[in-house]
Amino acid sequence: GFAKVDHHRSLRTGMPEVIYAKGKTSNQVARIFLSLTASGVNVLATRATREQYEAVKQVEPRAEFHEIAACITLNQKGDPTQTGIIGVVCAGTSDLPVAEEAAVTAELMGNRVERIVDVGVAGLHRLLSQHSRLQEASVLIVCAGMEGALPSVVGGLVGVPVIAVPTSVGYGASFSGLAALLGMLNSCSPNVTVVNIDNGFGAAYVATLINRRQSS
Amino acid sequence: GFAKVDHHRSLRTGMPEVIYAKGKTSNQVARIFLSLTASGVNVLATRATREQYEAVKQVEPRAEFHEIAACITLNQKGDPTQTGIIGVVCAGTSDLPVAEEAAVTAELMGNRVERIVDVGVAGLHRLLSQHSRLQEASVLIVCAGMEGALPSVVGGLVGVPVIAVPTSVGYGASFSGLAALLGMLNSCSPNVTVVNIDNGFGAAYVATLINRRQSS
Amino acid sequence: GFAKVDHHRSLRTGMPEVIYAKGKTSNQVARIFLSLTASGVNVLATRATREQYEAVKQVEPRAEFHEIAACITLNQKGDPTQTGIIGVVCAGTSDLPVAEEAAVTAELMGNRVERIVDVGVAGLHRLLSQHSRLQEASVLIVCAGMEGALPSVVGGLVGVPVIAVPTSVGYGASFSGLAALLGMLNSCSPNVTVVNIDNGFGAAYVATLINRRQSS
Amino acid sequence: GFAKVDHHRSLRTGMPEVIYAKGKTSNQVARIFLSLTASGVNVLATRATREQYEAVKQVEPRAEFHEIAACITLNQKGDPTQTGIIGVVCAGTSDLPVAEEAAVTAELMGNRVERIVDVGVAGLHRLLSQHSRLQEASVLIVCAGMEGALPSVVGGLVGVPVIAVPTSVGYGASFSGLAALLGMLNSCSPNVTVVNIDNGFGAAYVATLINRRQSS
Amino acid sequence: GFAKVDHHRSLRTGMPEVIYAKGKTSNQVARIFLSLTASGVNVLATRATREQYEAVKQVEPRAEFHEIAACITLNQKGDPTQTGIIGVVCAGTSDLPVAEEAAVTAELMGNRVERIVDVGVAGLHRLLSQHSRLQEASVLIVCAGMEGALPSVVGGLVGVPVIAVPTSVGYGASFSGLAALLGMLNSCSPNVTVVNIDNGFGAAYVATLINRRQSS
Amino acid sequence: GFAKVDHHRSLRTGMPEVIYAKGKTSNQVARIFLSLTASGVNVLATRATREQYEAVKQVEPRAEFHEIAACITLNQKGDPTQTGIIGVVCAGTSDLPVAEEAAVTAELMGNRVERIVDVGVAGLHRLLSQHSRLQEASVLIVCAGMEGALPSVVGGLVGVPVIAVPTSVGYGASFSGLAALLGMLNSCSPNVTVVNIDNGFGAAYVATLINRRQSS
Amino acid sequence: GFAKVDHHRSLRTGMPEVIYAKGKTSNQVARIFLSLTASGVNVLATRATREQYEAVKQVEPRAEFHEIAACITLNQKGDPTQTGIIGVVCAGTSDLPVAEEAAVTAELMGNRVERIVDVGVAGLHRLLSQHSRLQEASVLIVCAGMEGALPSVVGGLVGVPVIAVPTSVGYGASFSGLAALLGMLNSCSPNVTVVNIDNGFGAAYVATLINRRQSS
Amino acid sequence: GFAKVDHHRSLRTGMPEVIYAKGKTSNQVARIFLSLTASGVNVLATRATREQYEAVKQVEPRAEFHEIAACITLNQKGDPTQTGIIGVVCAGTSDLPVAEEAAVTAELMGNRVERIVDVGVAGLHRLLSQHSRLQEASVLIVCAGMEGALPSVVGGLVGVPVIAVPTSVGYGASFSGLAALLGMLNSCSPNVTVVNIDNGFGAAYVATLINRRQSS
Ligand SMILES: Nc1ncnc2c1ncn2[C@@H]1O[C@H](COP(=O)(O)O)[C@@H](O)[C@H]1O
Ligand SMILES: Nc1ncnc2c1ncn2[C@@H]1O[C@H](COP(=O)(O)O)[C@@H](O)[C@H]1O
Ligand SMILES: Nc1ncnc2c1ncn2[C@@H]1O[C@H](COP(=O)(O)O)[C@@H](O)[C@H]1O
Ligand SMILES: Nc1ncnc2c1ncn2[C@@H]1O[C@H](COP(=O)(O)O)[C@@H](O)[C@H]1O
Ligand SMILES: [Mg+2]
Ligand SMILES: [Mg+2]
Ligand SMILES: [Mg+2]
Ligand SMILES: [Mg+2]
Ligand SMILES: [Mg+2]
Ligand SMILES: [Mg+2]
Ligand SMILES: [Mg+2]
Ligand SMILES: [Mg+2]
Repeated sequence: GFAKVDHHRSLRTGMPEVIYAKGKTSNQVARIFLSLTASGVNVLATRATREQYEAVKQVEPRAEFHEIAACITLNQKGDPTQTGIIGVVCAGTSDLPVAEEAAVTAELMGNRVERIVDVGVAGLHRLLSQHSRLQEASVLIVCAGMEGALPSVVGGLVGVPVIAVPTSVGYGASFSGLAALLGMLNSCSPNVTVVNIDNGFGAAYVATLINRRQSS
Repeated sequence: GFAKVDHHRSLRTGMPEVIYAKGKTSNQVARIFLSLTASGVNVLATRATREQYEAVKQVEPRAEFHEIAACITLNQKGDPTQTGIIGVVCAGTSDLPVAEEAAVTAELMGNRVERIVDVGVAGLHRLLSQHSRLQEASVLIVCAGMEGALPSVVGGLVGVPVIAVPTSVGYGASFSGLAALLGMLNSCSPNVTVVNIDNGFGAAYVATLINRRQSS
Repeated sequence: GFAKVDHHRSLRTGMPEVIYAKGKTSNQVARIFLSLTASGVNVLATRATREQYEAVKQVEPRAEFHEIAACITLNQKGDPTQTGIIGVVCAGTSDLPVAEEAAVTAELMGNRVERIVDVGVAGLHRLLSQHSRLQEASVLIVCAGMEGALPSVVGGLVGVPVIAVPTSVGYGASFSGLAALLGMLNSCSPNVTVVNIDNGFGAAYVATLINRRQSS
Repeated sequence: GFAKVDHHRSLRTGMPEVIYAKGKTSNQVARIFLSLTASGVNVLATRATREQYEAVKQVEPRAEFHEIAACITLNQKGDPTQTGIIGVVCAGTSDLPVAEEAAVTAELMGNRVERIVDVGVAGLHRLLSQHSRLQEASVLIVCAGMEGALPSVVGGLVGVPVIAVPTSVGYGASFSGLAALLGMLNSCSPNVTVVNIDNGFGAAYVATLINRRQSS
Repeated sequence: GFAKVDHHRSLRTGMPEVIYAKGKTSNQVARIFLSLTASGVNVLATRATREQYEAVKQVEPRAEFHEIAACITLNQKGDPTQTGIIGVVCAGTSDLPVAEEAAVTAELMGNRVERIVDVGVAGLHRLLSQHSRLQEASVLIVCAGMEGALPSVVGGLVGVPVIAVPTSVGYGASFSGLAALLGMLNSCSPNVTVVNIDNGFGAAYVATLINRRQSS
Repeated sequence: GFAKVDHHRSLRTGMPEVIYAKGKTSNQVARIFLSLTASGVNVLATRATREQYEAVKQVEPRAEFHEIAACITLNQKGDPTQTGIIGVVCAGTSDLPVAEEAAVTAELMGNRVERIVDVGVAGLHRLLSQHSRLQEASVLIVCAGMEGALPSVVGGLVGVPVIAVPTSVGYGASFSGLAALLGMLNSCSPNVTVVNIDNGFGAAYVATLINRRQSS
Repeated sequence: GFAKVDHHRSLRTGMPEVIYAKGKTSNQVARIFLSLTASGVNVLATRATREQYEAVKQVEPRAEFHEIAACITLNQKGDPTQTGIIGVVCAGTSDLPVAEEAAVTAELMGNRVERIVDVGVAGLHRLLSQHSRLQEASVLIVCAGMEGALPSVVGGLVGVPVIAVPTSVGYGASFSGLAALLGMLNSCSPNVTVVNIDNGFGAAYVATLINRRQSS
Repeated sequence: GFAKVDHHRSLRTGMPEVIYAKGKTSNQVARIFLSLTASGVNVLATRATREQYEAVKQVEPRAEFHEIAACITLNQKGDPTQTGIIGVVCAGTSDLPVAEEAAVTAELMGNRVERIVDVGVAGLHRLLSQHSRLQEASVLIVCAGMEGALPSVVGGLVGVPVIAVPTSVGYGASFSGLAALLGMLNSCSPNVTVVNIDNGFGAAYVATLINRRQSS
């Protein structure tokens, strides 16, 4: 038969333990959170409510809550260990929760993170004025809802991988992020890849793997 | 009862007679074309083949064929009568047939037309270098396939109406223009409206109505 | 690099400052609203609740609430400055919120607005009895849910641009406005362009740009 | 067990035997056609090619071909037996194949049929000029592609059942008849029911059942 | 111009006045209801709540509430006037609200109605035991959710028109009635036509028009 | 690491080697076919053309072609070895290719197969007259296109598993088998499971696994 | 006519009576539940709430509630009667409600059930360490949301039928289970068949029919 | 204004010039190809036919054709310059064209490429036997059609980024790659990102950017 070896571990090396808090009770989140802190790794709960955070804080007072990101974090590892920068870009305030989920996740994974917000494509000068900051990043996470055009434009301005995160921001024919998702998959910038709608966490995970390569 | 008054005529005033050639035999196109020339108006056949053009030329030697636009035209009215300019913008060579259908139609409707091609959003400098030409237009027709991001970007650079034409250019998740269509409908530039996939003709029609207003 | 010039400004000239109130707290809306009033321009908040309005009124007593349109407005500019008329047409009472968002927006943008309601295509006499009013408009905004047939019929009765707004009114196979959207995109009236489902604001924006041309 | 009684027969009383010719060889169509003529009923083959017709004519010289309808018929019953009229309405020449499939089927089923063509909703005067003919019908079949708005408008002009047939005419966002289908299902005229895209045959079948009731 | 003649009236002759109560306040429903009773016709409110009914009863004590159908009715015309029977068929208890909307509407429109429930296709004996009742109907309304197979089976058992009503009953891949809708549109029984998902009212309207023909 | 053990083999025991011939050249099919015959197992090529068969026959004269099933088979194992019967049911001639793919596959896998065709739900008597044959089967494969209602009805008549195969037969709103697929997934008969559109092979594979259990 | 014989009964032999509790009042569920207990069979209510259970317990104290499965059961038959094992497999805690609905249903239907959880495909060692337990099952029910890949992988490891249950677990492009459903229908493991999204009950029903065959 | 600076160039550094050959004439491809060779960079034409290659060879005899990849390449740069390995993984022969497009592109971009084919998830032992080769890669490109499960499984076995390429391989409910695309977007392996259906080129482009980082 097959031995029960945790091959998954190689992947997770240095990554925080992660809880998807949505649909779990405050009690469940607190209990799981506590159990994960033991080994000294960082711990992250995404899609968390303030109520869940209060329960976590009871059992682990060092835990922090990130309101907009809806994340609970415990950083036991300290400062960034990657030398490269992950840029997290988004168009407007509505995309912030997704962008912040990505940024908070990336920070907890040991990356230096630069946030570049309010740079929607309908006001190009705002994006262009951030051109040098965009070019300093080793990898970019670009979050956008509605027509999801931002990753294509950003992709054309930089020479590094762009991870596009469609958000469910919009109404009507945005179909809860489908329009943005399709747009990003059809990006004419060849340095763009895509993750699931609103999946800031997944984008940060891959960006971390990419960012690590530079510092090795 | 209702009198049989041609209220549609008011709309068509000064517009060419139009034939949708697709699915019609060369013979049918030639016959209809000829019958429409009588009253002295301009005549346009869209989605036409060279073979259909040859048949038309037999009966109306003044007819011209526009290869890329797939249009047959007869211009009995002469030079542009509108003072404003209709800008026809597209990203790459694949979108040219749709852009040219729009441009040829707009010209035959008496407009001055400026073509601005090869300005895809993944290479922003190309678009920005056309900034002054974009700003000279009274109305813009922007054709784009794949992610369809161009109208949003153009819309942010100008202060006039932008008519977005999604094209069926692309493959896979472009779903024959659906991705571009949805993107354009969700444009964050508020000066953007949308017509059907590949409908260069319809875009030119509305652009003409808008352009006429300036000269009145 | 690129200079940070606000090219967007040319577009916005004379337009009100706009807040998309949905998902914002009353407090946030009030704060943003107040900050926008300073420069003397008109201010508009769409998708607003009465509760948000109460908060705005605390800080800006001149603000008005438009119940059906779900809009908060501050008019610091006074009466219409455009000579042309924007006609806002809809079929029934269910489409009124979208039509009113369009009408209130257009008025605040300095247009004269004519409302033509209760003219669904299933009772053609009602629409036909408004024929002369339809023909007085410089541009028409036509809102319709369900099968979304109204813009095609109106489009055939007038010689000006028609901006079609599909609404999410309906049930079952209306798929929250998709049926109306597809219908409008396939309109056989060539003077029809389309905006996003329920996007009365966007329709008014483009209609204003078109209406301005006449008066120039 | 269940007795093998042909309850289906009651339904078919007086109806022709029908062959769906698409995908069958000329030989197969001819053989089936011949076998059905024996009992003296009318025979109908829909979606038939001229080549299939030639094969049928070899074995049954009385068979007729209807080019536009793509139907082969054998009428062994003679003139119409229903007193009521089935009106078959369509917008333009592209919808004619579907409308003719309906008309030819209805005629072979013993109905008097009135064809009302070229009455698209974008030119309302054409439809209104046919108002009295519309009102003479006992039941109406209305075929339309693109936005599929015609049944709603016709439905509002008459007091009889309207059977709407979406056609696959159109391009882009018509999605091969889907736009028209959804439009018709959401018709605001309550006397409208719908059959499958391009299903002229099915519409004629139901119209015949309805028309029969008057004469009973 | 066009005279303002109410051509719609011919259609509505003998039909009740109808209110779509969903989304209206109790107060609005009561006010509209009362205004419609004046002319002596029957009045119907569909998609109504008990709360709305209480408001109506205040102003019109003769009004009745039909719990399952979610309908408020006022019958000022008395007993059925049609001789033919409308059969209203459905599979299980979940489809009852739609079936009852159809039945209550049909009764108020002056038809004799036979309800045939609990005859889902997975237990054929139940349907077959109702065979003679099915055959007594002049027209059948068949409501079904999930796979929507019932109209096809019923259609094969009778020789009259079958109006199929897909219901939103089901979960998962029923996609809120889409599966049933598509099934019904593709029915291999040629006597089937289809209305919108959950549209019991529309089915009853057309069934009434058909049923009237017999008695004329 | 993981040892390279062919765990898949346990599944395939006694199953034929299978080639999906579509998209392969005649030459490729012949070569692969020959290579698979060596070990003495049965060999099956599905979605095969007569031309591919001719190539196979050159190298393996014992191979047989099944025209309707579009299958090439080599039976080196002889007669059925299962005692139970697999019933293969379909509605009409259009579904035959899928039904035959299932039947030929099941036979080559050593099952006794009963074909029950021409039993569409719109003519229930035909199905009911086969009731006893249906009940003799140990497992049923039911193929249907269009509305895909047959598996639900058959499922209600028997006490064994029903494997439903949606076929791409139909047009318009059948969307190449999607309507049938959705219908079957929503079957109200709880003994129904579903495979991919047109997947007669997969249905036969699972039916064989089920049929084997009886004989063990 | 057709005699009213309950042919459905043959199918149900030995199966519990089942109530779909969703949308029913506690009172209704209790009343139906009690009425079904009389004949001595097992009784099952799926999609039930604790509140509904409390009502049932009032009238039938022996009833049990299964929190995660959301099922109420009454077991009047005692221990498993099948010799074969039904394996119920799922990836993570989010899929547990569906897996438990399947497991509880299968147990009440007299099967021995083995639960194999927390074996998602992204951590293959967890699945492989369960290899021998997988191979002991006579039939497997595999529940998975998100990409729905588990049935394909499990299918390749065993030689018995796999019934795949897509779950609505996931977000964004999972489209409430559609992604998992499509994945499972396209499984490259030929021993996989599929039921509706979240339909643990249906999967257990078919698995029971298959499992019974072994013991006969 | 904006200066016309080629910011795109930074991105393209060291990348080949690329032609999308589909829809272009042999003549056009040859002409463009030749013009791009001048500067000494590598040149790539994707989606190319042998006929197009023959035309290219006329003007540039050093060009090579890759039959399965459908690519024309000119390598003027010589051997790989990256030290890391890009693994290109696919399930079966049908996915080879996409996998080869990725592999050929990656090689031309200076990467060492390892091909790992015939490792579909339904036969896990084949994939597991390649475990060490998988772990040697710096980044993986995983191509899969049908259910698209391979990237999730591979993602769980490695600690590097996985770029998933859905292919249009499959039939029926694969909907030309949509099933695979959705599956990959919902991957439960967090190291997975996705590109457009059949976009082997795009995957190789991003993989190259990632692979470069290690060697820097
Ligand atoms: N926001 C998120 N989006 C997608 N996946 C997530 C997210 N947050 C956590 N995860 C994944 O969910 C797993 C934990 O799920 P659970 O055990 O249910 O808490 C982690 O291993 C992550 O891979
Ligand atoms: N490319 C096009 N796209 C959409 N509509 C068109 C196009 N070309 C022509 N039309 C419309 O088709 C009508 C002519 O159709 P027909 O009579 O079939 O030739 C014209 O009145 C135009 O409104
Ligand atoms: N109803 C609306 N529909 C679409 N866009 C809107 C609407 N109302 C406001 N907007 C846009 O939303 C922007 C303001 O968004 P925000 O900064 O989030 O309040 C404005 O610039 C408008 O372009
Ligand atoms: N979770 C479920 N999913 C699908 N069908 C179910 C489920 N639970 C019960 N059923 C079916 O629902 C029927 C009972 O429905 P009802 O009479 O409405 O309670 C039973 O005969 C079962 O076939
Ligand atoms: Mg890309
Ligand atoms: Mg807009
Ligand atoms: Mg148009
Ligand atoms: Mg209706
Ligand atoms: Mg029909
Ligand atoms: Mg089932
Ligand atoms: Mg299968
Ligand atoms: Mg991911």
